[in-house]
Amino acid sequence: MRRVQHLSRHVFPDPVAAPVDLPSEAVGLARRDRTRRDTISRPKSQFSPAEWEARCKLAVAYRLAAHYGWDELVFNHITLKVPESDRLSDGPHFLINPFGLRFDEVTASSLLKVDLDGNVVDKGTNQGPLFKQGFVVHSAVHAARPDITCVWHCHHADTVAVLTSTVGFLPLTQEALSQWGEFSYHPFEGSAVDLDERQRMAQNLGPKKKVLLLENHGPLTAGGSVEEAFFRMYMITLSCSWQVKAMAAVGGDLSKLRVPSGEYLASLKRREEHIVTKAKDDVDKKNESYNEVEAMWHAARRLMERHHGASSIYC
Amino acid sequence: MRRVQHLSRHVFPDPVAAPVDLPSEAVGLARRDRTRRDTISRPKSQFSPAEWEARCKLAVAYRLAAHYGWDELVFNHITLKVPESDRLSDGPHFLINPFGLRFDEVTASSLLKVDLDGNVVDKGTNQGPLFKQGFVVHSAVHAARPDITCVWHCHHADTVAVLTSTVGFLPLTQEALSQWGEFSYHPFEGSAVDLDERQRMAQNLGPKKKVLLLENHGPLTAGGSVEEAFFRMYMITLSCSWQVKAMAAVGGDLSKLRVPSGEYLASLKRREEHIVTKAKDDVDKKNESYNEVEAMWHAARRLMERHHGASSIYC
Amino acid sequence: MRRVQHLSRHVFPDPVAAPVDLPSEAVGLARRDRTRRDTISRPKSQFSPAEWEARCKLAVAYRLAAHYGWDELVFNHITLKVPESDRLSDGPHFLINPFGLRFDEVTASSLLKVDLDGNVVDKGTNQGPLFKQGFVVHSAVHAARPDITCVWHCHHADTVAVLTSTVGFLPLTQEALSQWGEFSYHPFEGSAVDLDERQRMAQNLGPKKKVLLLENHGPLTAGGSVEEAFFRMYMITLSCSWQVKAMAAVGGDLSKLRVPSGEYLASLKRREEHIVTKAKDDVDKKNESYNEVEAMWHAARRLMERHHGASSIYC
Amino acid sequence: MRRVQHLSRHVFPDPVAAPVDLPSEAVGLARRDRTRRDTISRPKSQFSPAEWEARCKLAVAYRLAAHYGWDELVFNHITLKVPESDRLSDGPHFLINPFGLRFDEVTASSLLKVDLDGNVVDKGTNQGPLFKQGFVVHSAVHAARPDITCVWHCHHADTVAVLTSTVGFLPLTQEALSQWGEFSYHPFEGSAVDLDERQRMAQNLGPKKKVLLLENHGPLTAGGSVEEAFFRMYMITLSCSWQVKAMAAVGGDLSKLRVPSGEYLASLKRREEHIVTKAKDDVDKKNESYNEVEAMWHAARRLMERHHGASSIYC
Repeated sequence: MRRVQHLSRHVFPDPVAAPVDLPSEAVGLARRDRTRRDTISRPKSQFSPAEWEARCKLAVAYRLAAHYGWDELVFNHITLKVPESDRLSDGPHFLINPFGLRFDEVTASSLLKVDLDGNVVDKGTNQGPLFKQGFVVHSAVHAARPDITCVWHCHHADTVAVLTSTVGFLPLTQEALSQWGEFSYHPFEGSAVDLDERQRMAQNLGPKKKVLLLENHGPLTAGGSVEEAFFRMYMITLSCSWQVKAMAAVGGDLSKLRVPSGEYLASLKRREEHIVTKAKDDVDKKNESYNEVEAMWHAARRLMERHHGASSIYC
Repeated sequence: MRRVQHLSRHVFPDPVAAPVDLPSEAVGLARRDRTRRDTISRPKSQFSPAEWEARCKLAVAYRLAAHYGWDELVFNHITLKVPESDRLSDGPHFLINPFGLRFDEVTASSLLKVDLDGNVVDKGTNQGPLFKQGFVVHSAVHAARPDITCVWHCHHADTVAVLTSTVGFLPLTQEALSQWGEFSYHPFEGSAVDLDERQRMAQNLGPKKKVLLLENHGPLTAGGSVEEAFFRMYMITLSCSWQVKAMAAVGGDLSKLRVPSGEYLASLKRREEHIVTKAKDDVDKKNESYNEVEAMWHAARRLMERHHGASSIYC
Repeated sequence: MRRVQHLSRHVFPDPVAAPVDLPSEAVGLARRDRTRRDTISRPKSQFSPAEWEARCKLAVAYRLAAHYGWDELVFNHITLKVPESDRLSDGPHFLINPFGLRFDEVTASSLLKVDLDGNVVDKGTNQGPLFKQGFVVHSAVHAARPDITCVWHCHHADTVAVLTSTVGFLPLTQEALSQWGEFSYHPFEGSAVDLDERQRMAQNLGPKKKVLLLENHGPLTAGGSVEEAFFRMYMITLSCSWQVKAMAAVGGDLSKLRVPSGEYLASLKRREEHIVTKAKDDVDKKNESYNEVEAMWHAARRLMERHHGASSIYC
Repeated sequence: MRRVQHLSRHVFPDPVAAPVDLPSEAVGLARRDRTRRDTISRPKSQFSPAEWEARCKLAVAYRLAAHYGWDELVFNHITLKVPESDRLSDGPHFLINPFGLRFDEVTASSLLKVDLDGNVVDKGTNQGPLFKQGFVVHSAVHAARPDITCVWHCHHADTVAVLTSTVGFLPLTQEALSQWGEFSYHPFEGSAVDLDERQRMAQNLGPKKKVLLLENHGPLTAGGSVEEAFFRMYMITLSCSWQVKAMAAVGGDLSKLRVPSGEYLASLKRREEHIVTKAKDDVDKKNESYNEVEAMWHAARRLMERHHGASSIYC
């Protein structure tokens, strides 16, 4: 962020026509807007069905981040591995937002496709650049953990507040417990522009965790699907919002909060696993199982389709 | 919530056609959405007038919960006993949201009808499953207290914050006083999936209380009508929001808050009852009594009808 | 609020037809809604121009209260003396909301006209009752202070939080200073249903103050016009919102806040008066004076007209 | 603010016709509204292209301030130097909002053009007066620092809270670090109506800083462009919002917050400069540099165009 003033202005590889939907008096302003580039229409048929579905899902994810206030104007990213791109000689490939679009502007076909080094494989319809320093934290996780397909990072106020304190994330509610044992911390190194930091991030995440809490910075959630990364971010954010309120109410005095002990958490877990086993038997008999992560995703996706119109996302 | 990943996906009893209102490019996404099932139209004439009115009211209640931020995407429930279903051989029956709908999507005819054990008696137009673990807290109350027809449960941020602290709910304002003597607490047991917990809940609620404050979890309000449960949730939530702000402002130091003493509360109550008796006499003479609980409900219901359109709720 | 369950339901003096704008399936719900009474159309010509303007302004005030979150569904009131009604044999008269309407539903012609004892002089188009216990605080001020034409009362979260603490309102900013020397406190007496409390309120307000801060309850602002009462409520609310945030940030430790001393406040006041005198001379020369209170009101009123449409307020 | 009641009402130099878009029943109210003056249409051709672009940008800035809650009904200002007006004999000139408009009402042609002494050079289409006491802080900066073209001032809640505490602004996150070394403080002097205060402000800002944090008052950001002033206000506000939450969560106990030491900040800066140098080389090779400040501005501006319609801003 500090380097903002030092960077030279973006120079376009291709000339871009003035946008047609602008009132004439705004042309002066628009001429300087390097993100008005959605003029290149592009048949979705050029994408494999699996890539197109991935693009649609990721576009929904960006809209959701904007909806829930997990965005920051043009900063931060959500990345998704292109299905089956691990097999490609220059793979794997990742879908990511072009720099300059707001999250509520991202569409399926405007997404960039990049490799692990940040080389742009497909410029998308927007043709904006990759924001390389933002890609650092994402490539760190994707490179280290091939099992992870989606990485979601944001700077939400309540989570940042928790991560700025030495107290850290507390197991206060069911929602917080849903992420228990799934996260680790990464110390603050300023703006994440150092490629060396990637190794330290990967090490801190380890081989199994799905959530990396970046101190004085923000959370990163990951998963084998967009749905899982969304579920984790939703629960982390909600839990941190409640924790910040609860801590403030008691003036930061944890002795006035009911923080379950490690022993109690272990007993809860044992009991729950016992019950879940029973419930699964029962559920299988009655054919009434459900997948909460999918249900959350679909409910959230329908909301975005209603807000924006499906055709303005999946295009 | 922890079991999310372990549960197998929901398998439909009946094949469901692809939704017709989807742009073609979204079919890939929609195929996985198990809640797009509002294709079964159903004449409301199949319901008794009393059940239909109950369904309409409960649909409004779900919309209100979404409006006031008392919802959590697809989780939590509001349940309402079907009028006169106590008399049925397999009764009583309860109306509840099918799992997977957002609260602002619930309609009168999409509600499930279930018995106390969670068996689905009527699948509604949505045909989604009952979220059995969420029904636990509701069936606990309905089974123990036949006088209660409506049970409203949520995880609102401010109430959760109060319930996470050892301080608990304080009688700071008129709004808080409106629930004084009406509530009790229930300790945290993790996610409420254990059917044994129902007994402990019923015991903690006791034979007369109308509000159960679930520690580290959220409030449950109850009443002889949807109106009463709404009134209680509204006042509990408002009071907790103010309490959290007041406590934070004084850094959790209760000596800096004006918390009325038990003695003072008793004197207020005596004075008020005296005045109410006088006022009722007066009011009866002038024919100007009013029911605040009904007035609140109707004002809130009209708001939902304006926001959503009445015909999109009562369908 | 405690008496809610004890009060008998409102009985209408006149039969009311079923509202015509309701979908047929909602009639069951509507039959119980005692506020659906806007069916009586009424020519504004029956009001004097001065009363009609007062009604329009007060309707705007209710919409503003709803807009800024200074409302509480159906509770609380803003009252305005009918111009020149002091001269009437049964005057003065006051305009007030009929009980049951949300603040964003109040219109110019639906307002009740009442006398100081709460007798309804004009039932308005809505024909709802006066909420007598809510009128207590208003009549207390109107009776004691004929110079005050408008009384605005609310229970805004941040002001309630300040008024629940023993710290009280602090002179932290210009906005807070705008009300300095203009307010006094009134201790908590539970819900204000006791007519005897009116005398204590009037005494606490005194002969000159314009703001009464009701402890554990909420603020009351007053003025010689709607504009002035609005200005005061706006500044009180904003100041309390900031104060609550600032106090929470320092854990309630006032030694970490810059609270101007009484001496410093006096010196600021002297300096400002000196400058204002100078400025007025200057301003008079240039013909560029301005009235901040009127400017605020008009800006806010235009916002309401844009949100709601002027014709849905002034009707 | 205190002088509000003392000032005589604004007297118009020119008679103004009753606005045409008002329902007839509102004329009584409108007659008193001194800001309904957008009836004078005016060809933009009368402005130089550079001035017109400046006007469009500044109008967007006002809309953004309203959008992000950085406004206060009719108070506060954003000023922009008219391009090349330094050369004029009576220059430089500055664009500023006419008093009485809400920030979301400001348009390109309604802006006033004034000189450093607050003399109105161009009355704009609204023809409202300059709010002279609000102009004090702006003229202080413009007079002292010809390198600064845009001055943005607001009273946002979270920044005010930080500036009311003795703790001040903390370097907790990247966003806060983006302003590190760029700001200084100015002590509270009550409402800024004293022209002598201008000199003290200029001195406190110094020859190089871009942000002046006015204690117990609010932030002022500045820059060589609207874009830069917006960027700084965005980052200051976001950082203060997070700081207030974090401080509240630990009850104001800074030992429970991870506040980077001065030494650590210096090491971060050295590392970052090293990396930026490397990155610029890399970026130049790949032709993929970007300007974050411009990207933020354009993303925000497009949002305003979508919300309001471009033609309602650039008019």
